[in-house]
Amino acid sequence: MPELRRDPVVGRWVIISTERSRRPSDFAPRPRPRTAGPCVFCGGQERQTPEEVWALRPGRAEPNTPGWLLRVVPNKFPALRIEGELEPSGEGLYDRMNGVGAHEVVIESPEHEAVIEQLPIAQLGEVFRAYRDRMVDLSKDPRLEYVMVFKNHGDLAGASLEHTHSQLVATPVVPLMVEEEIAGALQHLRIKKRCIWCDIIRQERQEGSRLIADRGGFMALAPFAPRFPFETWILPTAHRSRYEETPVEELAALASVVKQVLGRMSEFLEDPPYNFMLHSAPLRVPALDHFHWHLEIIPKLTRVAGFEWGTGFFINPTPPEEAAKYLRGETPGVALS
Amino acid sequence: MPELRRDPVVGRWVIISTERSRRPSDFAPRPRPRTAGPCVFCGGQERQTPEEVWALRPGRAEPNTPGWLLRVVPNKFPALRIEGELEPSGEGLYDRMNGVGAHEVVIESPEHEAVIEQLPIAQLGEVFRAYRDRMVDLSKDPRLEYVMVFKNHGDLAGASLEHTHSQLVATPVVPLMVEEEIAGALQHLRIKKRCIWCDIIRQERQEGSRLIADRGGFMALAPFAPRFPFETWILPTAHRSRYEETPVEELAALASVVKQVLGRMSEFLEDPPYNFMLHSAPLRVPALDHFHWHLEIIPKLTRVAGFEWGTGFFINPTPPEEAAKYLRGETPGVALS
Repeated sequence: MPELRRDPVVGRWVIISTERSRRPSDFAPRPRPRTAGPCVFCGGQERQTPEEVWALRPGRAEPNTPGWLLRVVPNKFPALRIEGELEPSGEGLYDRMNGVGAHEVVIESPEHEAVIEQLPIAQLGEVFRAYRDRMVDLSKDPRLEYVMVFKNHGDLAGASLEHTHSQLVATPVVPLMVEEEIAGALQHLRIKKRCIWCDIIRQERQEGSRLIADRGGFMALAPFAPRFPFETWILPTAHRSRYEETPVEELAALASVVKQVLGRMSEFLEDPPYNFMLHSAPLRVPALDHFHWHLEIIPKLTRVAGFEWGTGFFINPTPPEEAAKYLRGETPGVALS
Repeated sequence: MPELRRDPVVGRWVIISTERSRRPSDFAPRPRPRTAGPCVFCGGQERQTPEEVWALRPGRAEPNTPGWLLRVVPNKFPALRIEGELEPSGEGLYDRMNGVGAHEVVIESPEHEAVIEQLPIAQLGEVFRAYRDRMVDLSKDPRLEYVMVFKNHGDLAGASLEHTHSQLVATPVVPLMVEEEIAGALQHLRIKKRCIWCDIIRQERQEGSRLIADRGGFMALAPFAPRFPFETWILPTAHRSRYEETPVEELAALASVVKQVLGRMSEFLEDPPYNFMLHSAPLRVPALDHFHWHLEIIPKLTRVAGFEWGTGFFINPTPPEEAAKYLRGETPGVALS
C-alpha cells in the first residue's frame, strides 16, 4: 500500500510508493525508442488494461472490446489505491496515512499515432466530458477530497507512454497548491468583495496584450507572471468554481480554445513537451465565490534548477506579451523585435 | 533590465528576463557534447569572465590571473542586475519591480575535469567559506533581502556549463519557499516553544532509520517526507538560523558530511543530475529562534510531471529509510529486500 507522508514544516504531502520501491540501479537512464504500436492503449488491446470505468462507444460494442473512441481505465500502476481505509497515524512530529485514492487514465483515441490537438473538436470535447463525468462519479466516494486532472506530453514532461492520454488522481487531502490558490483568492474577496480570476478576466480584456482567445464563454491568456515560457491559462469567462458543473453543451467551446493553444504551441515550438493541469474547487466544499476553475498549460522548454527549487521564484526568458502574439497566431518575425 | 512580476493569486514572484527574450525557435533542443576544455571557467581563462569578487589564491598572484583554487565572479548573463533601483509599480491587479539583485558564480576548481565530491575536504570547506563571505558582503547592500546559494549538476538539473560551479542569487524580496518554511516553523514555535528542526534532529537521532551522518556538529538525514528519491538534508545540530554566522573552523566538518553524501550518490546512482540549495534566514531579520539553516540536496532521477505541478504533491518511489541505507554506505544488495 502506498503511503502519504506530510512534511512537518511546510505541510507538503508526498506519496511514498513502497510497492514500487526502487533501488539505485533502477534509475539508470534507458533510451526509450518511439514504438510503432500497437501498445496497451491501442484499439484491439483492451484486455491489456484494467476494465474500463467509462467509454465513448458510438456503436453497441461490449465494454473492453474494440469500437470505442475514448476510454477511461484504472491506472495499472496506481500512485494511490482505491482499496482500504486511510488510517491516519502520528509518529512524533510526523503524520502519515495509507495511500488511498484513485488513479485513472483517459485514453484520448484508439489510434496510436493520434495527436490530441488534431482530434476533431467534437472528440476533444468528449475528452473534457470524460473528465467531468469521472469527477462527478469519484465525488461520491466520501474518502476523496480532490480530483486532479492532468496530462503529460513528451518524455521531458514525464509521459511514460507516448499514446495520447491524460490522467486523473483523486486524493484524500486537498493539495497544498490548490489550498494556496484558494487562500490567496479569499484574501482578495475579503478586501475587494470580488473573485480575483473574474478581475483578471476584466483587466486582460481591457489591456489585450496577453489575451490569446476569448470566445464561446472561454478565455485563453498568457498570465502576467508566468513560471514558464508560453505558459497559458484557459478559464470560463463566467464565474464557476467547480469544473464538473460545466454544462456539457459548453465543452465543445472549451475544446476549441484548447485545440487552438496546443496547436499553435506544437507548430511554433515544434511539438514541445508539456503538462496541463485542471484546477477546480475541492469536492467537499460548497461552490466558492472566490475560486474560479482554470486549466494551466505549461510547456517544458526550460529546466527547473536549484534556484527555482530553493526559492519558488521562476526565471522566464519569454515575456507573456510576446508569447501571446505567437499563440494568437500573429505572423512570427513581424513586429516581434 | 530584467523585471520581477508577482502572481496576484498566490504571491509567487517570477523573473522575466526581457533582455534575453527568446523566440520559439530558440527553444529547439540542441545536443550539447561534453567538451574537453578549456572553458571560460578554467584556469588561464580568467579574462573571459567578469572580474572576480572573491578568490582563494595561496600564492601572491594578481586578481584575474592564474594561480587560484577558487574564484567567485559575477554571472556574465545575470538573472538579476546589480545596477539601478527597484522602482516598484502597480498596474491594476499586478505588481512589478525592476530586476535588481546579484548573480554570482562560485568556480569550485580551476580544473575542467574536477568533481566537487572528489575535492579535498579542505578545499570543499573553502567553497562553503566562499558562500559565507559572499553572503556577509552582499548583506551590506540594503536593497537585498535574501541570498540563495545553489548548485546545478548535470544537464537535467539545469547546469548549462559542466565545469564544476555553484551560484548565488541575491533577491530584493524574500522567496516564497523560505517564507513558507518560516511560517510553518513559527507555528510550531508558538505551540511547542521549540525549533522544529531541533525537534527533527532529536527525533531522527532516536529513530536512526533515516540518519545518514551525525558528526562534527552536522547531521545528514533523509527527510521523513522527501519529494525526490535520495533527497538529503544537511543541517547543523546546534541551533543556528543564519548560515553566514557559521564559524569558519566548523566548515571543514560541514564539507566532510557533504562530501560523503555527494560521493555516495555519485557511486550508487552513477553520477546523477542533482541540485542543492542552501536555506538560510533572510538577511534583514534578527536571528530566529524558529528557523534553522539547512542544505537540501535533490537528485533528479524522476520527472516532475503534471500531477506534481498541479498539486504540489510529489510521488517518490524510494522510501527515505531505504535511501538512507545506501547513503550511510551499507553494502547494497544485503538486507534491502
